[in-house]
Amino acid sequence: MTQSHTSTGLAPDQQRDALTADPLRFGVGARLTIAAMSDHYPELILGALQENDPGELRIETGDVSTFIGGAEDELLRYLTGVTATVARTGVHASISLLLSRGCPGEVVCDLPGGAGPREVTPPAGVDVGRYASAEWALYPLADEVHAGVEPDHMRDIYAAIDLAKELGTFRGSVHFVTRLEGDLGRILQTVLAGWVLVGRTVQHVTSHLTVSVNSPSHAHVDI
Amino acid sequence: MTQSHTSTGLAPDQQRDALTADPLRFGVGARLTIAAMSDHYPELILGALQENDPGELRIETGDVSTFIGGAEDELLRYLTGVTATVARTGVHASISLLLSRGCPGEVVCDLPGGAGPREVTPPAGVDVGRYASAEWALYPLADEVHAGVEPDHMRDIYAAIDLAKELGTFRGSVHFVTRLEGDLGRILQTVLAGWVLVGRTVQHVTSHLTVSVNSPSHAHVDI
Repeated sequence: MTQSHTSTGLAPDQQRDALTADPLRFGVGARLTIAAMSDHYPELILGALQENDPGELRIETGDVSTFIGGAEDELLRYLTGVTATVARTGVHASISLLLSRGCPGEVVCDLPGGAGPREVTPPAGVDVGRYASAEWALYPLADEVHAGVEPDHMRDIYAAIDLAKELGTFRGSVHFVTRLEGDLGRILQTVLAGWVLVGRTVQHVTSHLTVSVNSPSHAHVDI
Repeated sequence: MTQSHTSTGLAPDQQRDALTADPLRFGVGARLTIAAMSDHYPELILGALQENDPGELRIETGDVSTFIGGAEDELLRYLTGVTATVARTGVHASISLLLSRGCPGEVVCDLPGGAGPREVTPPAGVDVGRYASAEWALYPLADEVHAGVEPDHMRDIYAAIDLAKELGTFRGSVHFVTRLEGDLGRILQTVLAGWVLVGRTVQHVTSHLTVSVNSPSHAHVDI
């Protein structure tokens, strides 16, 4: 058998492994929008972003959202820290989160199908002691068969739902989304881990989450 | 040839046509979150929802978002009215929108694959005289071949992008999303019409939009 080598000197399998091992090249990241419903929103939002150490994550702040690129466990740590800082202010806020992995381009993926999947351990979360309610959508988008692994979207989606039930955050289905409730840190763990679980067999997976903290509707809720 | 008939007395083709003709049975709808960054957010948000006539749309308000079910042109009219009311207050707000059609269930579609697509004319929008910036994701999700029409995701996505360019709202691609800018009404038209365009050949299509209005970053922008 022959193997084709490119100018990198790596065989195709090695190239693929190098690519999936690098979270930024594999397009692992988030877009985060924090909307604090207060006249003091600028200092609340900027404060939450500045008080939490991004470590090795790549951060680009825009007028609609903040892009955060890097490994899944680092993303969960940072997102939990930033949103917990917001929640602890007591101000009602709506937090929108888009997660994506496996498609570092925009309109068209820069990665060919079959470059993934990228398999990582679902990241572990922490309790932050603040209640939140949320609506969650999870989208497996690429259908390439990789290394003999048949994608099975429903199996992976069910695994993500089972994890939400284990973590105690699952509350059921409403139109178009799954409703999550509970500790803010466990909601984020549910969503990041579910996204990674579906990513075991699917290269391109996105997820969207809208979180409500300190809502007047939550006044009666204890966690 | 024989045709199977069910208890409805309709042939399968007629059943499918009746189903795709009914926006609520086909699962056409939106989830809208308005986050007004002001101490007066309750009256701003409820006022915008109450001042605009939902007509025949089904509305269910929750603590994370408001569900709005009904036909695409009615959705565009109502979403434009509500968000324009918010924009006219001058208060900085972040607006999150999820659109879905072709999957009226939640975790699992209640519709079988091949029940669609539903073909409607892309709805026409209006200028509302308020500038907005936005980030847009568009997801064709079902892959069933219907009536000999091969789904062609990239063709339909490009048609949606071309429409954004025609409407003057397209600003380019950033990580994971397409950036739109311009009149708030034309941004919403872009997103609703693009969603309908992809729905010409794909049963289940979702789209997510995050819009910023009255941002301090927009102080220099005229439309």
